[in-house]
Amino acid sequence: MFTHQKALQFHATPDGPDPAFARRLQEVLGGKWGEMTVAMQYLYQGWNTRLPGKYRDMLMAIGTEELSHVEMITNMIDRLLDKAPPMAADDSARNTTTAEYAHHNPQHTIVNGGGAYPADSNGVPWSGAFITASGNLMADFHLNATAEMQGRLQVARLFHMTDDPGVKQMIRFLITRDHMHQMQWLAAIQELEEDGLGGLPVPEAFPLEEEFDEFSRTFIQASDGEQATEGRWAHGAAPDGRGDFRSAVIAATGETPEPPPGDPRLYGTGVLEETKGLVEKAKDALK
Amino acid sequence: MFTHQKALQFHATPDGPDPAFARRLQEVLGGKWGEMTVAMQYLYQGWNTRLPGKYRDMLMAIGTEELSHVEMITNMIDRLLDKAPPMAADDSARNTTTAEYAHHNPQHTIVNGGGAYPADSNGVPWSGAFITASGNLMADFHLNATAEMQGRLQVARLFHMTDDPGVKQMIRFLITRDHMHQMQWLAAIQELEEDGLGGLPVPEAFPLEEEFDEFSRTFIQASDGEQATEGRWAHGAAPDGRGDFRSAVIAATGETPEPPPGDPRLYGTGVLEETKGLVEKAKDALK
Amino acid sequence: MFTHQKALQFHATPDGPDPAFARRLQEVLGGKWGEMTVAMQYLYQGWNTRLPGKYRDMLMAIGTEELSHVEMITNMIDRLLDKAPPMAADDSARNTTTAEYAHHNPQHTIVNGGGAYPADSNGVPWSGAFITASGNLMADFHLNATAEMQGRLQVARLFHMTDDPGVKQMIRFLITRDHMHQMQWLAAIQELEEDGLGGLPVPEAFPLEEEFDEFSRTFIQASDGEQATEGRWAHGAAPDGRGDFRSAVIAATGETPEPPPGDPRLYGTGVLEETKGLVEKAKDALK
Amino acid sequence: MFTHQKALQFHATPDGPDPAFARRLQEVLGGKWGEMTVAMQYLYQGWNTRLPGKYRDMLMAIGTEELSHVEMITNMIDRLLDKAPPMAADDSARNTTTAEYAHHNPQHTIVNGGGAYPADSNGVPWSGAFITASGNLMADFHLNATAEMQGRLQVARLFHMTDDPGVKQMIRFLITRDHMHQMQWLAAIQELEEDGLGGLPVPEAFPLEEEFDEFSRTFIQASDGEQATEGRWAHGAAPDGRGDFRSAVIAATGETPEPPPGDPRLYGTGVLEETKGLVEKAKDALK
Amino acid sequence: MFTHQKALQFHATPDGPDPAFARRLQEVLGGKWGEMTVAMQYLYQGWNTRLPGKYRDMLMAIGTEELSHVEMITNMIDRLLDKAPPMAADDSARNTTTAEYAHHNPQHTIVNGGGAYPADSNGVPWSGAFITASGNLMADFHLNATAEMQGRLQVARLFHMTDDPGVKQMIRFLITRDHMHQMQWLAAIQELEEDGLGGLPVPEAFPLEEEFDEFSRTFIQASDGEQATEGRWAHGAAPDGRGDFRSAVIAATGETPEPPPGDPRLYGTGVLEETKGLVEKAKDALK
Amino acid sequence: MFTHQKALQFHATPDGPDPAFARRLQEVLGGKWGEMTVAMQYLYQGWNTRLPGKYRDMLMAIGTEELSHVEMITNMIDRLLDKAPPMAADDSARNTTTAEYAHHNPQHTIVNGGGAYPADSNGVPWSGAFITASGNLMADFHLNATAEMQGRLQVARLFHMTDDPGVKQMIRFLITRDHMHQMQWLAAIQELEEDGLGGLPVPEAFPLEEEFDEFSRTFIQASDGEQATEGRWAHGAAPDGRGDFRSAVIAATGETPEPPPGDPRLYGTGVLEETKGLVEKAKDALK
Repeated sequence: MFTHQKALQFHATPDGPDPAFARRLQEVLGGKWGEMTVAMQYLYQGWNTRLPGKYRDMLMAIGTEELSHVEMITNMIDRLLDKAPPMAADDSARNTTTAEYAHHNPQHTIVNGGGAYPADSNGVPWSGAFITASGNLMADFHLNATAEMQGRLQVARLFHMTDDPGVKQMIRFLITRDHMHQMQWLAAIQELEEDGLGGLPVPEAFPLEEEFDEFSRTFIQASDGEQATEGRWAHGAAPDGRGDFRSAVIAATGETPEPPPGDPRLYGTGVLEETKGLVEKAKDALK
Repeated sequence: MFTHQKALQFHATPDGPDPAFARRLQEVLGGKWGEMTVAMQYLYQGWNTRLPGKYRDMLMAIGTEELSHVEMITNMIDRLLDKAPPMAADDSARNTTTAEYAHHNPQHTIVNGGGAYPADSNGVPWSGAFITASGNLMADFHLNATAEMQGRLQVARLFHMTDDPGVKQMIRFLITRDHMHQMQWLAAIQELEEDGLGGLPVPEAFPLEEEFDEFSRTFIQASDGEQATEGRWAHGAAPDGRGDFRSAVIAATGETPEPPPGDPRLYGTGVLEETKGLVEKAKDALK
Repeated sequence: MFTHQKALQFHATPDGPDPAFARRLQEVLGGKWGEMTVAMQYLYQGWNTRLPGKYRDMLMAIGTEELSHVEMITNMIDRLLDKAPPMAADDSARNTTTAEYAHHNPQHTIVNGGGAYPADSNGVPWSGAFITASGNLMADFHLNATAEMQGRLQVARLFHMTDDPGVKQMIRFLITRDHMHQMQWLAAIQELEEDGLGGLPVPEAFPLEEEFDEFSRTFIQASDGEQATEGRWAHGAAPDGRGDFRSAVIAATGETPEPPPGDPRLYGTGVLEETKGLVEKAKDALK
Repeated sequence: MFTHQKALQFHATPDGPDPAFARRLQEVLGGKWGEMTVAMQYLYQGWNTRLPGKYRDMLMAIGTEELSHVEMITNMIDRLLDKAPPMAADDSARNTTTAEYAHHNPQHTIVNGGGAYPADSNGVPWSGAFITASGNLMADFHLNATAEMQGRLQVARLFHMTDDPGVKQMIRFLITRDHMHQMQWLAAIQELEEDGLGGLPVPEAFPLEEEFDEFSRTFIQASDGEQATEGRWAHGAAPDGRGDFRSAVIAATGETPEPPPGDPRLYGTGVLEETKGLVEKAKDALK
Repeated sequence: MFTHQKALQFHATPDGPDPAFARRLQEVLGGKWGEMTVAMQYLYQGWNTRLPGKYRDMLMAIGTEELSHVEMITNMIDRLLDKAPPMAADDSARNTTTAEYAHHNPQHTIVNGGGAYPADSNGVPWSGAFITASGNLMADFHLNATAEMQGRLQVARLFHMTDDPGVKQMIRFLITRDHMHQMQWLAAIQELEEDGLGGLPVPEAFPLEEEFDEFSRTFIQASDGEQATEGRWAHGAAPDGRGDFRSAVIAATGETPEPPPGDPRLYGTGVLEETKGLVEKAKDALK
Repeated sequence: MFTHQKALQFHATPDGPDPAFARRLQEVLGGKWGEMTVAMQYLYQGWNTRLPGKYRDMLMAIGTEELSHVEMITNMIDRLLDKAPPMAADDSARNTTTAEYAHHNPQHTIVNGGGAYPADSNGVPWSGAFITASGNLMADFHLNATAEMQGRLQVARLFHMTDDPGVKQMIRFLITRDHMHQMQWLAAIQELEEDGLGGLPVPEAFPLEEEFDEFSRTFIQASDGEQATEGRWAHGAAPDGRGDFRSAVIAATGETPEPPPGDPRLYGTGVLEETKGLVEKAKDALK
């Protein structure tokens, strides 16, 4: 169950309106790696995990914090849209260039009346497909770590796309929290291993004797880039400690597939003579 | 530039048709974490990286191998759809139960005439939004590792959803390669660090002095699950070696946001008295 | 800023697993009119409104409550998926028919490992496009009222699709809250009017003298259904109190559009003679 | 069955080309609340209603009229794209600023050759998910009223984004019809009530004794905004005439959910000791 | 401008309900190649063409007829859903098997209350991206011909998936019209050529001397399937009458791309030594 | 099975960066008719066809070539984004106008760090729904021909939107290959006919005697455009050689549909008196 306080987790106010930057900031609100994604991803992982205790408690804590970040960015976008003029001609007194003005998102004014919404920097709506909650915490914590990496990367890029001190202040906060959250997920991965709840490869519980040994530690070279086999992914010990990497050129060990002709009632193009007979039968059957 | 050979990388033929399993197998072909995703993700990362040498060469090699897996799964789905009857009434001689038959994907017959397509197990089309190529290899290699974890997890689950020996044979191959690829990406992450091309947090090059120290290693507790602070993400050394984790209860340090009234030409609901005046002016201006 | 408690707002536990009903219940979690939609819609409306006070406070209160409903339904779906067998053959001891089993969502097991996700009853992901926060509260409160109507309608239908007493218990709670919320939004519409913050038509502030009188209260008959003009929408006083409805048969008062030929560099099919000349010029210009 | 006349329902021609406004006008053609949506929504409601007579006849009349509006806006966008130059360098003689030119939709030229298409102002395609035809006319007429409100709001905003007299003429027509249609749906809601075909809450036919009395008229406060309970949604008579509103602070009346460990064949992370045993069994079974 | 008559263009009533077939029939209503697509595609092509006369008139005629087919299929789906029971247990007296019942679309009851909607046979919504109106009639008429081919193919497959005489009657009508429409578009292609409005290749007006002769009639062999060069696409006269086909094995005539390191403010992984210096400079600049 | 070479199929390097054109070029990479679509469409058609021999071999050859075009365009977009400055203020030394700069895609920098991705010119992701592999080669080859027409049309338009000689060089290559591929598919259609594998209408194997003769060659006039019947689609021999076209005005030969009232448990609005009784019964049943 959730409760809400009106004050923000962290406060920052922009110096002035900037609808072009408001458009860009949508990426870390409603883009694939934005705050909507991490908030919902951590909450669904917490709700769905069948493991009570510290992992679930931690997921609910961070998912709830991320909701507070959704709120902060929404508020910042709203302020950047303050007094965003409906027409370029109104734009003379503003602190963005006319060229930048042209780069704003028309839905910010036409649809939302000067407000944020769950969409990316091109106005493509946020999708529930952006989140993953697989039930396997080892797989999901690795995803969570990368989500914070992609998120911090995007916010660090945005840091260089504005000169507004207030906006930079909020971006610093987000960069800091993304740093912390990277650390957090990497620590959680270690803890899962130490608790015996998962290891490499994921899922660890699948019996390795079902695998094919000749393919299990072999880097397969399918391009002509000769340096591909120079990395440690092609020789030396594999991270799961079960043997050494090797490499091999890709080879077609299978046969050329020759599927049989389809059911004539599906009207696919089939084998020359044989299908003709089947089609006649189909025609007869329909008479 | 690509070339193609008709023989498959690995050969497996199902014992008999099974349209219900064909539907499920679509998940690892055209789902978010399926082979279409990893093939395209590794290729776009290889094309876009501005770093020539072993990393790019490796990305092109594995991306191309994954294309060959797309081909293998497509061929397997086609075979599972062989002689898939248009109607349940035709189903008497087949090796799946009638109930299972009802679970097939109608587009397999109506749209594709007994063939696979880039969609997930519910028939939702594959989306270009599923792939990420950020230009930062450290962030992307972590994503690649998790993609292989999610992929191996799904294929391991599918292993228990069929009794067909030929299908299980192909699934074993995919599980093995996903195992190898997890190892590969984890080794590549180590190599990036050793080559000085990236570290924690990602991106490493963003200056840490821009961050807020009080938020940088603090686990923020926003739920009432007391065990959340028992994990190593809330105390002890953080993985980046820059200090110790701490924890704190979430606190609203910001003010309650009070955005100013909007432009009356946007017809938002504004402050009672003030907006009325603005609206009148807007009406006058329109006369 | 949000905080979370682990206990649920309302408790209900199903009698037993039912993956087919779990699939259906996804509709009111991640469908167009599900709990994800109302939670996010009310929160974004609250964040974006430029009117401080009771309306914003109310929006934040109900949006936060709806988040708690997202949590409840997620938990219920998880329980309905408990022990959901990977294969139909495992199904003998369960309390749903085999036919019903076939109707489950394959992503519930393959992708989520027995958990809920933000998608509808066919597995189509939730979309940010489902929510509207226009900045005009009168328009949005009418939408909110209809969202609760559609939501209550769907939950009332689901009530008849299960015999499980625990599931029915949760559905009763949701139906009750949807009832309350319909009342709430209708009362809020009255309050907006009484506060002078909006009226009919929406937006009220647009000057009526800009409208065309001949079209402003006329029901236009474009079909041959003679009873269409028998309703009160075609005669008597209009709800805005500005005059009486009338009706008229649809008429083409405009001209037949004749757009000029396009730029030859766009290679559209143009007017016969004229375009040919333009194309030649384009060819010459390219030489 | 439909028939078509080439002349437009209402005629308006722009003064000159304006590709930037053409982009914006797409919102009310192919956006969520655009003419494609209302046309298709009313037609599907008319086709699907199981109630012959004035309501169905009215739905078919207005849905068909809205198709004529789709045609009008399409024609207007085409004209605004007349002579839209492929490059900014061609732009010197045109009546929009260079900055505005940059804001056009590239698909208007590259894909459509100077024509409109069913997409919103950011080029995101229209979706069938935008329409609702629930079978319950009371719920749907409320949605229809709000669709006209959102539509009129957007067109009123567009009115201030252009100086072109011809474009403003068409916008006036659309604003007028949206006014009329708001009146129409509100009158239809009254008529449904008077005809005894529906009332509050929707659906009215669900037995109220199935609801939980303690939750049925209670505004639940889940935020710290104190004014939230000052509105009439928190005290006084509820609109359904069945009692008075009350208010209460949100409370967790449920238990903390503790789902049992999942099936080991799904490889979720489970309870420490117990799951390990299950996994061993799964491994044994696979041998 | 459109008008509507309540009677259907063609009448057919099913023998009895069949929700599983109703689900399948959605494919030709709201699928990629369904009636929604052809109706909207022909209308947008007609509205957007800059060529007045017989082509535009024809497009408006057929687009309007296809709207009447949308109506017919919607009505048929509604009838197939008549008395569709909310639960399988209600199903005993119906003429479909229990297994087939399980295959129905849950949104047909939960969302639509027993009605059709613009979605495909898996419930994925119709998309505006399904239609193309390029402004070039030669390109679009070829697409229209294939749309009728795909449509007739799907309806012919559906013909074999039902035994209901009334449903088969409607399917016969649709198959017949799709036959006619294939003829129509092929005749229109011939007429465009005879009128000098387009030819091969499309667009014909692009100057051929801008093309590279060595690639212009060469079939490029990029696979090891030896029979690929046996077809007439690899030798003999090309259909545009400008020369003979040849064939060649694919060859990499370009260089290996070596993009320069990116801007350090984007934090991509760059060239080892050089980027490090740039990153230091970026850090300094930020101080 | 696929293999890859690092050198490109064709080499072209832009004169300088141009992020606005990079945005536009995305259309022919990740748009509906871009290279991603044709590559995947031909490969899936090749994989799924049940006809071994020259047709399958040819499909695999051309699909593989198109993958090489995806690579080329990706590389070109990357180069056009070289040194794309994060802010307009950095833009002074670049060869595009400031207005054009404003027209770039923000995801190119924020998300991809200066790289291409599978999305269209508005940033809408590529969709698996863009491809069709129906199993019927005659239908699909017609689609393939039109895909090359739409593709060549778009690239020809792009040719006029840039002055960069290197970019124009690559566009010339693509235009040339699209020309060749149009010829190839038209030749393949002829070959299918000559091999007796398909003819008109598609599918040819459906028995014509199942069609309704009165509708089979009749152009139906549903608009008032009198010239619609002047084309050869309304008189003279039809292309299938089975008779002459005729024309007729559209007529409603069906009845007005009157669906029965729905199940009261779905709470649809039903017939006035009758439904009331049903609803009472439903209420009683629930007691």
